[in-house]
Amino acid sequence: MKIRVYYEDTDAGGVVYHSQYLNFCERARSELFFTKGLSPHKENEFFVVKSLQADYIKSAKFADLLDIQTKVIEQKKASLVLSQIILNEKDEILFKMEVQVAYLKNRKPYRIPENILNIF
Amino acid sequence: MKIRVYYEDTDAGGVVYHSQYLNFCERARSELFFTKGLSPHKENEFFVVKSLQADYIKSAKFADLLDIQTKVIEQKKASLVLSQIILNEKDEILFKMEVQVAYLKNRKPYRIPENILNIF
Amino acid sequence: MKIRVYYEDTDAGGVVYHSQYLNFCERARSELFFTKGLSPHKENEFFVVKSLQADYIKSAKFADLLDIQTKVIEQKKASLVLSQIILNEKDEILFKMEVQVAYLKNRKPYRIPENILNIF
Amino acid sequence: MKIRVYYEDTDAGGVVYHSQYLNFCERARSELFFTKGLSPHKENEFFVVKSLQADYIKSAKFADLLDIQTKVIEQKKASLVLSQIILNEKDEILFKMEVQVAYLKNRKPYRIPENILNIF
Repeated sequence: MKIRVYYEDTDAGGVVYHSQYLNFCERARSELFFTKGLSPHKENEFFVVKSLQADYIKSAKFADLLDIQTKVIEQKKASLVLSQIILNEKDEILFKMEVQVAYLKNRKPYRIPENILNIF
Repeated sequence: MKIRVYYEDTDAGGVVYHSQYLNFCERARSELFFTKGLSPHKENEFFVVKSLQADYIKSAKFADLLDIQTKVIEQKKASLVLSQIILNEKDEILFKMEVQVAYLKNRKPYRIPENILNIF
Repeated sequence: MKIRVYYEDTDAGGVVYHSQYLNFCERARSELFFTKGLSPHKENEFFVVKSLQADYIKSAKFADLLDIQTKVIEQKKASLVLSQIILNEKDEILFKMEVQVAYLKNRKPYRIPENILNIF
Repeated sequence: MKIRVYYEDTDAGGVVYHSQYLNFCERARSELFFTKGLSPHKENEFFVVKSLQADYIKSAKFADLLDIQTKVIEQKKASLVLSQIILNEKDEILFKMEVQVAYLKNRKPYRIPENILNIF
């Protein structure tokens, strides 16, 4: 998934604000659903972030066109661990993250449906 | 209401991102409720923004401590027009806005309750 | 310009947070530059928002794919007035705004360069 | 440091958007400077986030008044590891994070000045 960096994503340091990389990664996770004609939010069923480990390697700047890549590295009944990396147009890794997401139904852990597992 | 400008509020231009002034004004409107022990969001009743007219006079910068002032300029059964201004520590007006907010219950216009009118 | 609505754009009311529509419009203005191979931020030259008048007609929701349309309605030496509308996939107008942007060089009003005027 | 949760901090899930906890923690780090009459951003000197490990324990909701607590757990010449936790009004831990921040001067690692170390 390609994401352009706009003014709103940057801060007075001239680069992308640190928490914004998490937003980019979340957009990429959501877009995996959208491209399959599914929604990441089905009534009272959706994923939530449980934990994450993030490394900031190089700064993204205004106007950069970023590439966000996502893959599953661990799969359990009601949760996934994903590895996500953000690269710039020169294919330099700017940011990497391992994020554990849990699937909830009515705010309780719930087995991830088959059609959703197939997305990843 | 006093609001500090943090990194997240600024952009690569070095000043507060233009839509962030609207957030500051919304915080000030919400805080009017909180200081009276009320909530701006009661089940399916809350205000929504219908229209606004905003003037950007001078930029707020990182670390500024802003003062947001709110007053009612027009009151109808189910809506209010508020005037909000944002000042810096030197009492310079940075931003001013007239915003019309409508009171909704179950997503439909609804008469503003007496105790809420008393806040403003 | 097409913009997808992600979680980050919504608030607890279940719809897009009111100031986020301004961000969408700013992305659309910036993208006009990018599609022409230009940047909206050239050293110390860029546009800033001077004033805006916005109408909230219908709410955008999570997962909506929005269309942002921009046209010039007034052109002066160092400023433009743009009309921007946001539509959903059913071509319903959700939001419309008139925004005055001023061109600055070193934080002072400056004649808009010809190649930038040609974008709009 | 106390932080109120406003609409802008929440998402359509009805709770605080996951990356927003990082913003709250950054505000708390900046506020440590402000309360000592210092600025976290001195010309070309400031901290940047290098890595973080975050755990989401319980959700913060609209109108919550959060308490952010920060302590140093490791101190090097040009970087710090901080532990930050976010609690709600019932003193429940909602979020905890270990964040490594590096001190930069002109975008290069630089020894943290004594008066800044004293803040933490």
